[in-house]
Amino acid sequence: MLSVHRAVVTGTRAHTGTRTLFSSAYQAKQRLVILGSGWGGYEILRAIDKKRWNVIIVSPSNYFNFTPLLASCSVGTLEFRAAVEPVRRYTPDVVSILTIQRIMAACIYGYPLQQVSYTAWCDSIDFKHKKLICMPATAPVNFHGTKNPPGGSDVNESASSVSGSSEKFQLTYDKLVIAVGAYNQTFNVPGVKEHAHFLKDIRDARAIRTRILECFEQANQPTITDADRRKLLNFCIVGGGPTGVEFAAELHDFLHSDLARHYPALARMAKINLYDVAPVILGGFDTGLQEYATSKFKREGIRLLTQHHVERVEAGRMYVTEEGEVDFGLLVWSTGLAPNPLIQSITEAKKDERTKRSLVTNGTLNVVMKDTNAPDPDVFAIGDAALIQDQALPATAQVANQQAKYLTRRLNRLVRSGRVDEAPFKFHNAGSLAYVGDWEAIFDRTKVEKGPKGKETGRLAWLLWRSAYFTKTLSVRNKILVPMYWFLNWIFGRDLSRF
Amino acid sequence: MLSVHRAVVTGTRAHTGTRTLFSSAYQAKQRLVILGSGWGGYEILRAIDKKRWNVIIVSPSNYFNFTPLLASCSVGTLEFRAAVEPVRRYTPDVVSILTIQRIMAACIYGYPLQQVSYTAWCDSIDFKHKKLICMPATAPVNFHGTKNPPGGSDVNESASSVSGSSEKFQLTYDKLVIAVGAYNQTFNVPGVKEHAHFLKDIRDARAIRTRILECFEQANQPTITDADRRKLLNFCIVGGGPTGVEFAAELHDFLHSDLARHYPALARMAKINLYDVAPVILGGFDTGLQEYATSKFKREGIRLLTQHHVERVEAGRMYVTEEGEVDFGLLVWSTGLAPNPLIQSITEAKKDERTKRSLVTNGTLNVVMKDTNAPDPDVFAIGDAALIQDQALPATAQVANQQAKYLTRRLNRLVRSGRVDEAPFKFHNAGSLAYVGDWEAIFDRTKVEKGPKGKETGRLAWLLWRSAYFTKTLSVRNKILVPMYWFLNWIFGRDLSRF
Repeated sequence: MLSVHRAVVTGTRAHTGTRTLFSSAYQAKQRLVILGSGWGGYEILRAIDKKRWNVIIVSPSNYFNFTPLLASCSVGTLEFRAAVEPVRRYTPDVVSILTIQRIMAACIYGYPLQQVSYTAWCDSIDFKHKKLICMPATAPVNFHGTKNPPGGSDVNESASSVSGSSEKFQLTYDKLVIAVGAYNQTFNVPGVKEHAHFLKDIRDARAIRTRILECFEQANQPTITDADRRKLLNFCIVGGGPTGVEFAAELHDFLHSDLARHYPALARMAKINLYDVAPVILGGFDTGLQEYATSKFKREGIRLLTQHHVERVEAGRMYVTEEGEVDFGLLVWSTGLAPNPLIQSITEAKKDERTKRSLVTNGTLNVVMKDTNAPDPDVFAIGDAALIQDQALPATAQVANQQAKYLTRRLNRLVRSGRVDEAPFKFHNAGSLAYVGDWEAIFDRTKVEKGPKGKETGRLAWLLWRSAYFTKTLSVRNKILVPMYWFLNWIFGRDLSRF
Repeated sequence: MLSVHRAVVTGTRAHTGTRTLFSSAYQAKQRLVILGSGWGGYEILRAIDKKRWNVIIVSPSNYFNFTPLLASCSVGTLEFRAAVEPVRRYTPDVVSILTIQRIMAACIYGYPLQQVSYTAWCDSIDFKHKKLICMPATAPVNFHGTKNPPGGSDVNESASSVSGSSEKFQLTYDKLVIAVGAYNQTFNVPGVKEHAHFLKDIRDARAIRTRILECFEQANQPTITDADRRKLLNFCIVGGGPTGVEFAAELHDFLHSDLARHYPALARMAKINLYDVAPVILGGFDTGLQEYATSKFKREGIRLLTQHHVERVEAGRMYVTEEGEVDFGLLVWSTGLAPNPLIQSITEAKKDERTKRSLVTNGTLNVVMKDTNAPDPDVFAIGDAALIQDQALPATAQVANQQAKYLTRRLNRLVRSGRVDEAPFKFHNAGSLAYVGDWEAIFDRTKVEKGPKGKETGRLAWLLWRSAYFTKTLSVRNKILVPMYWFLNWIFGRDLSRF
């Protein structure tokens, strides 16, 4: 299996000068390709034994979004970079404090910590020949008169151009992990993609923060009418899941602290509206906690518009079946997951919405191939892009992260022992947390298997929420930055500079 | 003088409910309008006695740029928000820890700490009738079917609509401070505004940071040729003043630390080129320090292209008289100051480039009116937009800041004593600092009047550079954040996430 790829694999390092250092141990390393840098892909990149695998990660963004903090970032409780982790931390080598280890490892294994990362989309997968076609996710470069040569060049020999296309390139793999996640579900409501904000990426959070501050600056202009001010300061959220609820809570906090202090008259005109088609918010949570959140939101003046249906969205206006025209300054849309185009192209049209969204895997997370109906030993799928046969797991970061940890253990052991560990993946529910504003959270532990069952509300749950996030924030840098920002913004207020 | 504006002035507070609380002391307050939120305008806003003046600040951005840190921000040594201060800190009231003082002041003076800030451009000034016409600097709001009513509305009664325009509004003033600064000088080189980056605002720094990371991500694509990689990684800076030099130094540091670690092959292809028409860089500095910086840059591999002339700029390419075509991934343009359109409209066409750029003031910073040739007692101009008769001062932040401090003292005293303090402004040169990379700076104290004269180079100058910036960073928040980021980025490296 290895011989086919050896020639290509040896080309992955960028240091051509170190060619002679390469030991046979390095050349024998298999190539692991990871698609995606989210909760699944980034965790594997982080924890995989890089002395044993040549790792290539392909992702349209060169960072990992720490999604539970995006709502905080979107109102300025946290700074953007505190909620992302750069993928390049692990490529081509690790942080400088590990230099001695790196040199030692280089003596033992050749040049082993060399990893490659491509900022690209995976377009299609040829499972039979173990090939991927990728498309750069950076803007195309067009210098006058320069043409791309046939084949690759010396910087990245691991990838080769695809004939007939000057842009796309091809990668081979020994093992493949598909962790591409899902897209935002819009239920084909017209205008959502154009006029609403999603909240899945740090760019979304930045756009929302800029827009909130812009709404207030626009409403502060002396030439505007009060009627238009109320429209500009009408903030709508569609989707009563944890993302929508936490964003509403954070926006409420922002409105009633910094914005109320610096734009007092305008803050009184502002309204927060939370829409959902379901009769309750926080569908997956315990009923008592749902009621707690509902009554808290009502006390805080957040309008809960359950059993409401958005028909279409235009610039600054949407049409709701139960209300008619609703003007807004900001619309945040968070109604679940839609299939990723790559996954859709693999699974093709299926009737079941859930299986259409996902690749089906067996218990050990190997993808069940469509044609043979047998699991492929070299292809794995995890996270929102995957669905385990006969297991119904929620589409959460927790599941993706646990699957990644399981798979990393398997892959690391696989290399060491040469045999595949066949114990199937098992999800351990650690409970669900949601921030509901005003330093209070809800913590649902009614479905956990280990530890005390139960539910928490209020300040204690808030503390659990903060500390849970704190320990899960991956890098030391962000472990310092996140509480720092919490503290600074608590003392000095959030920054209102709009740029 | 006051009676004319009293009716309007009483309308500046947003709390209509506090109308009855207003004491006659508040109503007698004069209105001070500040144009601009840079080194001059922000300093006045910060230090002016707000119990004595009704302050209105008009600026297209709602923040102050701490300009000496922009070069650091543009390569990620500092985070963006650590180099800006929100104007709204002082409007409508101050930070929450001052609440008791505010309540006490409200008891004494009515509702005195109420300040107004407009995110707007000043279009024109009618000195005779003490009126300003302003244009909102936010995106126009267009809700279907809503029209602006004639006149203002209850939120901002201090401004009234301009008849014939639904957008522009009018302000009156008792005292006016013009601190609008200057624009970037392009010497009418075609294409500069479209294809080069300036470095005067935090938005510029953000665009540059994104572009540097994008250049590396584009160059890292496997489908690109090495020739194109070298073009993408050719970084050009036009202008050898402190801004251009500090940016070159910061970029060099970034290239030889984090970028070299994470893109080793690409970092070796990267080049930094510093162009200037003059025969030396850092024109205003002492000759010995110029030579020090020049030889340091040469050692660091920064190409110094003095006596070079850029003829025109296109996307990714410029034409240099001495070199011909030069392809670049990033072009930063910093060749001095051009007149602000507002100032230009006031001064009209003058022959002397320097007086065309600026309003002429007398020694006490009162603007000398064109028609009467006499100083206006109610209109002041400071910073890059101003020029004191018979005094040649550099166009630096130091001058603008000292002028603002002088003017604040005068305005505060004016209100208290009722008489104008006529001692003219005197600039106290505190020396010039410039960072030259690799933890070294140059510090020119050859022209200072107080303290030890002399010049410093190297690490000691770097320490002075850092501590000077540290003490001048205005808010406590940024006094914590700036050294925090220096420390974190020194330990963990700069963040390479591109978003």
